[in-house]
Amino acid sequence: MALDEADPLRPLRDAFSLPPATIYLDGNSLGAMPREAAQRVAHAVSHEWGHDLIQSWNRAGWFDLPQRVGDGIARLIGANPGEVVATDSTSTNLFKVLSAALRIVHADGEGTSSRRVVLSERSNFPTDLYIAEGLCNAHGLTLKLVEDDASGAAVHAGIEAAGDALALVMLTHVNYRTGAMHDMAAVTAAAHAAGALTVWDLAHSAGAVPVDLNAAGADFAVGCGYKYLNGGPGAPAFVWVNARHVDRFWQPLSGWWGHAAPFSFVPGYQPAKGVNRYLCGTQPILSLTALETGVQTVLAAESMGGMAALRAKSLALTEAFIAWVDERCGGHGLQVISPRNAARRGSQVGLARFDASGSGVGTGGYAIVQALIARGVVGDFRAGDAQHPDILRFGFAPLYIRFQDVWQAVEHLREVMEKGEWQLPRFQQHQAVT
Amino acid sequence: MALDEADPLRPLRDAFSLPPATIYLDGNSLGAMPREAAQRVAHAVSHEWGHDLIQSWNRAGWFDLPQRVGDGIARLIGANPGEVVATDSTSTNLFKVLSAALRIVHADGEGTSSRRVVLSERSNFPTDLYIAEGLCNAHGLTLKLVEDDASGAAVHAGIEAAGDALALVMLTHVNYRTGAMHDMAAVTAAAHAAGALTVWDLAHSAGAVPVDLNAAGADFAVGCGYKYLNGGPGAPAFVWVNARHVDRFWQPLSGWWGHAAPFSFVPGYQPAKGVNRYLCGTQPILSLTALETGVQTVLAAESMGGMAALRAKSLALTEAFIAWVDERCGGHGLQVISPRNAARRGSQVGLARFDASGSGVGTGGYAIVQALIARGVVGDFRAGDAQHPDILRFGFAPLYIRFQDVWQAVEHLREVMEKGEWQLPRFQQHQAVT
Repeated sequence: MALDEADPLRPLRDAFSLPPATIYLDGNSLGAMPREAAQRVAHAVSHEWGHDLIQSWNRAGWFDLPQRVGDGIARLIGANPGEVVATDSTSTNLFKVLSAALRIVHADGEGTSSRRVVLSERSNFPTDLYIAEGLCNAHGLTLKLVEDDASGAAVHAGIEAAGDALALVMLTHVNYRTGAMHDMAAVTAAAHAAGALTVWDLAHSAGAVPVDLNAAGADFAVGCGYKYLNGGPGAPAFVWVNARHVDRFWQPLSGWWGHAAPFSFVPGYQPAKGVNRYLCGTQPILSLTALETGVQTVLAAESMGGMAALRAKSLALTEAFIAWVDERCGGHGLQVISPRNAARRGSQVGLARFDASGSGVGTGGYAIVQALIARGVVGDFRAGDAQHPDILRFGFAPLYIRFQDVWQAVEHLREVMEKGEWQLPRFQQHQAVT
Repeated sequence: MALDEADPLRPLRDAFSLPPATIYLDGNSLGAMPREAAQRVAHAVSHEWGHDLIQSWNRAGWFDLPQRVGDGIARLIGANPGEVVATDSTSTNLFKVLSAALRIVHADGEGTSSRRVVLSERSNFPTDLYIAEGLCNAHGLTLKLVEDDASGAAVHAGIEAAGDALALVMLTHVNYRTGAMHDMAAVTAAAHAAGALTVWDLAHSAGAVPVDLNAAGADFAVGCGYKYLNGGPGAPAFVWVNARHVDRFWQPLSGWWGHAAPFSFVPGYQPAKGVNRYLCGTQPILSLTALETGVQTVLAAESMGGMAALRAKSLALTEAFIAWVDERCGGHGLQVISPRNAARRGSQVGLARFDASGSGVGTGGYAIVQALIARGVVGDFRAGDAQHPDILRFGFAPLYIRFQDVWQAVEHLREVMEKGEWQLPRFQQHQAVT
């Protein structure tokens, strides 16, 4: 396809092992496997663990993996070296940064501060809301959720409404269902103007869209290692803290890896300087090793224009998908529910199917995704609710998705709809997939 | 060696890949690599991740790994199926169980309870103390540390002294430096008699000594996957909660993996039934996969007498080490500092070297360990302080250590001392090893 021949990033796909006869549009859920990961993890198991054993803590650099991988991620999200560590899960890291952010907002003594509102979106990824809910309950704060709104206006209205009561704004930069992307700098500026801090979840951003945390003046961020960073199943997540906050307080998971001198084995917690204090316990080295190779697949784009080039390709892929769906799959009730404004869209596109009554829930979305999977086109399904339609979710990882993949995926979707394949009973049975 | 020929557990060593010309007495820090781990992890990377991608969440059972591995661990620690999950780090899990235990103790409303003391030992592993210190500060409690005492009398005196003020007793079952082992049932009974709960760290116990949490009536436990469970570097840890407590409250790291319906993607945290609520975020699957093979190496002993047989061999190994050190390494200031009473000793032996002035700190322990490593005998070193001597630490993993290894290790030690090798300058340079 001419579009692929003209793609300057085309060589980056060679770094991945992808299954045959598969168009993998779910890299937003689990990134594809870098070829290097197989060799690198095998070496970590057989040589570093099996042969060198405990000597590998120093010799293979196991101790420094959270920082080494973190420094690589930092280059993708507008952070400086030494500002990011790769560690634990996104949920656990969110607990750490929310706790620290609340300590800073309430630094005049908790209970005396009148800032009692944590603002987020109802459509935020549920685990973010669960973690925030727990902390709000523990601290007597209110978790206020605005309805999602692709324009971002609801968040700005929420900030204004909370006013002096606002403590934190906690948002996922790119929505996991719709792919709608917030203007990080604008929201951060509004939160700061209200006297509050911002906590960003970059799960669907890091490696997918340009992020510049320091330029945006953001306060805290967490993100995921196993989506666009291609770190492998359940790869450790990451934490970033703005330099102006990092040494002010520490976080409640005050384990030895965040201690100033972890191998002194002394009682009495003394937090390490900088972001190292956001570490807690010993890290899963094999999974961190795989993540290191994953991050390198994204950094490999640096010589070809980096995140700006990845973003250009990502938008070209999603633009093509939207245009071809509009053009070739009309008449089946399918609608694009992701922002058509490219500037507001991440690297994924959601479709919904509305029936004649206008309902978008229970209208075949799940079965359509299953019928596509049977044809080798892997997307995923996210159930809707009273306010939101079911979503057929397609991610376009610019490192390894080609324009021909997009074209073929749309053709398969057209055939699934035109031939009524999705109505076959075998595609109706629901089964959870993350 | 006749002792090895008579060892009924001898075949279990074949499950491990051990480096040549090495006597590995540090399985208490990082367990050796099961041969199966290399194949199993390679399959998880190349096939489950690389080929099946997101389908592996169901097809390869990734979702159930914390429970599946937890059920295996349960059989080693006197827990029932469904009572243990493998997840996160020991430090993070300790935060969860301490938080939950405090909620239960203070169930009549925090602030109104007069139980304000958390009791532990100064010689507990530092990260346990750091986590407890953080929670005590957050909740206005006092962390009271008794001096370590191989007889356990100090803990019982501490329980008595705290009386009605006692909230929790938090102990590591087998001390990381000395290998001294608490009588879990006796301490638990004393804590309960005082109206308090117990939290046990089984880092140096699981897979090394028989543990029967339910028989002891213990309340909460955590433990480590990368020591005697042979789960690989930084393998996930585990959590156990007594059935009488598990559904009463949940823990603050209320992430989606602990939700009653994680894939409903609904706002509002509803904890899962049972120990699943002690999960938080997505787990590092590659590291969990390696842990699964490690746990299987211990379960392989079940047909040969299980933990009782492993304990018998472990004690025979440590008895032999102690006897041979006494017999062959006298006259160099070396003393066994682990309990000579077998019933009070874990699966490791600590030595200290005292100089003519009676000091045991800075008296060559580090250099002796380095000189042994240069000879292929891998133990480790833990620095002392004003109250405690430096320790030369030797772990005896009964799955793969032979009596001939013990004999040869003692002979190497004898030669290091008799030839004065440890005084060579190249062995003096200190470098941190976990």
